[in-house]
This record gives sequence, C-alpha cells and structure tokens, in this order.
Amino acid sequence: MMRRVLQVAAGLGRHRALAVAHPILPRLHPASAFGSSTDTLVSRFCLEKTDLKDYALPNASWCPDMLSMYQELLEKSKDSGWVKLPSFKSNRDHIKGLKLPFEVPASSDKSDWRIFPRCISEEGQGYEYVIFFHPSMKKSVCLFQPGPFLEGVPGFAHGGSLATMIDETFSKIAYLAGEGLLTLSLNIKFKSLIPVGSLAVLNVDVEKIEDQKIHLSCITQSRDQKTVYAKSSAVFFQLQLEEESSQ
Amino acid sequence: MMRRVLQVAAGLGRHRALAVAHPILPRLHPASAFGSSTDTLVSRFCLEKTDLKDYALPNASWCPDMLSMYQELLEKSKDSGWVKLPSFKSNRDHIKGLKLPFEVPASSDKSDWRIFPRCISEEGQGYEYVIFFHPSMKKSVCLFQPGPFLEGVPGFAHGGSLATMIDETFSKIAYLAGEGLLTLSLNIKFKSLIPVGSLAVLNVDVEKIEDQKIHLSCITQSRDQKTVYAKSSAVFFQLQLEEESSQ
Repeated sequence: MMRRVLQVAAGLGRHRALAVAHPILPRLHPASAFGSSTDTLVSRFCLEKTDLKDYALPNASWCPDMLSMYQELLEKSKDSGWVKLPSFKSNRDHIKGLKLPFEVPASSDKSDWRIFPRCISEEGQGYEYVIFFHPSMKKSVCLFQPGPFLEGVPGFAHGGSLATMIDETFSKIAYLAGEGLLTLSLNIKFKSLIPVGSLAVLNVDVEKIEDQKIHLSCITQSRDQKTVYAKSSAVFFQLQLEEESSQ
Repeated sequence: MMRRVLQVAAGLGRHRALAVAHPILPRLHPASAFGSSTDTLVSRFCLEKTDLKDYALPNASWCPDMLSMYQELLEKSKDSGWVKLPSFKSNRDHIKGLKLPFEVPASSDKSDWRIFPRCISEEGQGYEYVIFFHPSMKKSVCLFQPGPFLEGVPGFAHGGSLATMIDETFSKIAYLAGEGLLTLSLNIKFKSLIPVGSLAVLNVDVEKIEDQKIHLSCITQSRDQKTVYAKSSAVFFQLQLEEESSQ
C-alpha cells in the first residue's frame, strides 16, 4: 500500500552499481540503459498532438518582463535550436506510454495527482513558469514568477519555492539530456530574495555526465543580471524509463 | 514597487559585516541584535489567545502514523519541555507587532498572502505538517505527510516539496533558537523517495551559532527509522525583527 518504500540510490558507496546496492529495484537493467538520444527524448516529451492542457503558456498574470522574455525565447525556438517544453498537470501525463523501472505505491487512480509546481490552479497565485531547452548545447532557461501563495518572508518568495523551481527545472533537463530521473543531491546558496510577482530567470547547464550521474548547475538572477538570487548545483541518477508492455 | 530587490547576505566574503556588504539595509542595527532569549521568542510565537486558524492540528486526512506520533509528542509537551508550534496561513500573522529590518516590496494588501507550505487549503491534498520544538535542547521534530498535489515521480513526493518542508522547519527553528531569519545555504542529499500519503519525520538540530550564522542539520526518515529519506543542512543569517513603532 502507500507505506511501501522505494530505496533509491545515494550515499551508499561511490560508483557502486544501483542494482547491487538496491536489490529492491527488480526491473532495472543497467546494461540496456541510456540508449535514447536527446533528440528522441525531446520529441517524445514535446507531443505535437495532445488534448492535455499546457500550463507553460502566457496568461494575464504574467508581468511584462516575463512576457517579453518569453516572446524572445519563442522567437529563438524558430531557428536557434531552442525548444519550449510543454508543462502538464502531472508527470503521469509526461511519461504516458512509459513506466518507471521500480514499484510505484498502490493508490487510488481517483486522486487529483499534480506535479508539485503545478499544485495551485489559480493563475498568478502560485507558480508561473516556462522552461526552454537547447538540446545540443544542453542548456536551459526557466522563467519563474512566484505568486502570493509562495510567500516566505513577507513580500518575498519562500526559499522552498525557489528550491522547488530549481529542482523541477533540473529534473526535466536531466531527463532530456541523459535520462536522469532521481535527484541525489541539491545544493543552493541563496544570495537575494525574489520579490513576489517579479521575474526570476534560471539558467541551467549540464556540467557532465559520468558514472550514471548527471551533474547540473544553475544560476538564478533578475532579467538584467544585476541581481543574483541563487547559485545551485545538483546530481541526478540515470534510470531509463521502460516501454509499457501493452505497446 | 514589486521590482525592488533586497540584497541579502551570502558568499560575499566570510565574516564581513552585513551592514558593510549591504548598505541597502538601512535599518539594520547589528550592535543591538540577538538580544531576545529563546523563551521570549517562543512565548511570543505561541500566542495563547488568537483568532487565527492553527493549521497544525489533526484532520481526517492524517494517516494513523501521523496521528499517533502527534499524540505522543503532545503528551511530551505537557512535562518534557516540548512545545507544539502553531502554524498560521501567513508569516505576516506570525510576526504581528514586529517588522522586518529591511524594506518590503510595495504590494496590495488585498492579496491572499500564504506561507508557501500552507498554499493548498484542501485537507490532505497538499502539505500536512506540524512542528514541535524543544527550546532548551534546541531540537525540533516535524511530522510531514505529502498529499497528491505534491507529487514528483508518480506516487512519490516531489524533491522540492521535501526541500520546502526542510527549509520551513529550519526557518522556524533558526528564528526561535537565535533570531535566524534568512536562509543562506541549503544542502540536501536525497536517499529514498517518500510515498504520497505516508508520514516522514524530520529531526532537526541546531548545530552551532557563531558569526551571526546559525547552522542546522536535519535527518528525514520513516517513523520506524528504518528508511532514511534525506539528510540535510543549512545556514541561516541572524537578523532581529524590530518592534512596530506604533507599539
């Protein structure tokens, strides 16, 4: 039931194979992993035809900075290799036709599952964000506008809301750049507070991929780059999604 | 307006005084800071009479583990020095009668401000949590049950939701233990995924307070301590709240 716990990789001895350290992952096949190209992953992720609502589109709550930078990046997506990533309500929508290589806790399908950064449905109150990715440069830009439901210190975004935005951007890029699926570590140095309602720009780079680990870095700053909000890094574990057996 | 940015302390040269590095903080008086005892801070934080709703109380969504551990800690609060912290909708409620020692962005008071971990009002769908604090031991326990709106990998809590819960618990304890107000750094090593709907227990310790910095550590695990979900640490900056001039 819901109490079943998945043991995942981390801190259990460097360079030890996941299958050895975690025999609880019965369907992991390291030998066959990491065979999908970035282009294949991106084209599967960016569905051309879908009835799913894409939440990474402008709405009336977006501040002028967010809107104009979105338009700039959208222009670049026409001829400079940048790709706007769709953002559905749940990761379950993003991995349709695929399944996780480990056991998922039993639960009612009637639950209204939401990916955490899309937990608040009211426009402008919670997360407003859109992620662009450049497959060949393995770079990403996320535009993030925190609403008043994301407050920490009065008037400013909660540190956890930025940590979440960073982790979410890292996770999408880790997956698309190299089938990174699980966050092993996340380190953040906070430099300035982000005013609620303003734009923060996350610039993410894939630093290296080795030993089944993807190392990423991120600098979060104001659009004019004069204010650095945070510097962060993370390591993700590579774990290939499997095809659903029905396909 | 909302674009005004507060420069806060971090990575700007060790042991440099905040007032020197950040002349933008006009009302900071380091010499007078850190004069309040933990008991004074706790008694002010835990209002005996208030009309504010306390969200850190059991509801029908709490799983049996969460409910019984809450009752155990509540028993301890009668004679063992543990204190259950109230949890209001906004940090603005927690600091009534006090003001921040820096400028807060101008904004409409009509906004529905919510502290991020209380952003979701539906019981059981988002965050369910309660924090207990032991002032003399400078220890804290947070009971955390993630709902389906906090999902990351299908069936499990988003890494950002745990990062937020850790940061929020750290922030409350940093404040009560030593007037820590701003997160400077947050480091998390994720060990296992937390199934949605289950209980995760955060055990927080204040490691040391020096050079206007509060160092904290946290281990997050299952109730039976057999599964470690994450190990984390953080550094907070001390910054004393000021009395409202009207008082």
